[in-house]
Amino acid sequence: MQSDNPTAAILVIGDEILSGRTREGNAHHLAQVLNATGFDLREIRVVPDDHDQIVAAIRAFDGSLGGAYDLLFTSGGIGPTHDDITADAVAAAHGTTVEIHDAARALLQARCDRMGTELTPNRLRMARIPVGAALIDNAVSGAPGFSIGNTHVMAGVPEVFRGMVDWLVPRLGGGRPVQSRTIEVRRGESDVADELGVIAAEFPDLSLGSYPYHDERGWGTNLVVRGLDAARVEQAMDQLKQRLSL
Amino acid sequence: MQSDNPTAAILVIGDEILSGRTREGNAHHLAQVLNATGFDLREIRVVPDDHDQIVAAIRAFDGSLGGAYDLLFTSGGIGPTHDDITADAVAAAHGTTVEIHDAARALLQARCDRMGTELTPNRLRMARIPVGAALIDNAVSGAPGFSIGNTHVMAGVPEVFRGMVDWLVPRLGGGRPVQSRTIEVRRGESDVADELGVIAAEFPDLSLGSYPYHDERGWGTNLVVRGLDAARVEQAMDQLKQRLSL
Repeated sequence: MQSDNPTAAILVIGDEILSGRTREGNAHHLAQVLNATGFDLREIRVVPDDHDQIVAAIRAFDGSLGGAYDLLFTSGGIGPTHDDITADAVAAAHGTTVEIHDAARALLQARCDRMGTELTPNRLRMARIPVGAALIDNAVSGAPGFSIGNTHVMAGVPEVFRGMVDWLVPRLGGGRPVQSRTIEVRRGESDVADELGVIAAEFPDLSLGSYPYHDERGWGTNLVVRGLDAARVEQAMDQLKQRLSL
Repeated sequence: MQSDNPTAAILVIGDEILSGRTREGNAHHLAQVLNATGFDLREIRVVPDDHDQIVAAIRAFDGSLGGAYDLLFTSGGIGPTHDDITADAVAAAHGTTVEIHDAARALLQARCDRMGTELTPNRLRMARIPVGAALIDNAVSGAPGFSIGNTHVMAGVPEVFRGMVDWLVPRLGGGRPVQSRTIEVRRGESDVADELGVIAAEFPDLSLGSYPYHDERGWGTNLVVRGLDAARVEQAMDQLKQRLSL
């Protein structure tokens, strides 16, 4: 698909995904939001709670550090425990250090006051932010995410992650939202491949995909046309339907 | 976690994951199988149907090509349509070419005979296999996966992927399965961080993780101890429970 939208990558940080304990869902949610907002998501990477792997991925992705994409979003590893090492790794990748951030501390203190709890040293760990970073609002649980360079660092707990995405993404100024049309056919993928190939060649500016599935009635295929220009997407879908006699 | 198990990575190939259309599940399934079979999954990467990105990822991962991990598993892009480019990319990464594979053609022909359909040129595309590769059995839909170097190439359709994993992984000779124990506490993560940190420091051979969640009753945390030695895992969990007065 031809696109001049800003490009993006997602870095998911956490042993629990690689151990099979948790089925990742944050990247899927953010993928939907980015496509709808006009960002071109080019890669997702899942790494363990390992300093060197996190630093390497940030440098490979963040365009402000010479990485491959305009923007990088991360999920996970910013909590209060020994294995929450994301803030330190992001700071290292961006050539800075981590300090207690005054505004973050104030947010945590205000939340503790409301809850009638104490701002313990563990809770205060969540105010450790790379020097120079801007905070990302957390409406769910107080402890903020942060942005530094083109890296946007968010929590792994799904409802907190979604809250941060809701706050952050509209502030980033995306490009043109992707337009998508789908039709479902009760045929195997190989029985529609010719028609799909012809339309794909005629519309090099669009992305045509075919997604086979199998259920109790046998094989079916979802045919998807995607692009930035709604009229072109409609046109391609109309021609595809004609060729398939639908 | 200390482990001398073979290391592995998963490469998921497909625009539909990055567009947010499909929530990836194959990597999650394989992560569970690998951990239970004694493989140490170190990274998951999702890339689009893009030749260069696929080739780069295979070279970065496959140990037989100088990549970072012992084994690489891929999912997606081996169907009959124009955007199924995985076989060509794998061949390029391994310095070989793609040809119609006689045994693969025979499998597809036998299936077409059973179904009373024809082995069309599109269906025959699924017998295009890198020269030198060995086939991976597909009990669900006939078209085989394949292994070349340390790269194991499987389909993206979930039930086909699972069938291939069932056939393949027991043949790979893993190491020691990961032992895992979990307890749930009705406390926030910051209220158990000290105890968890102490046990983590005392058991450097194990992996200790904490996974907070939020529900109608407030915050809770799952505490997970993982390692290759069941007795050590039990010992760490017992000490953690004592410290938390559970």
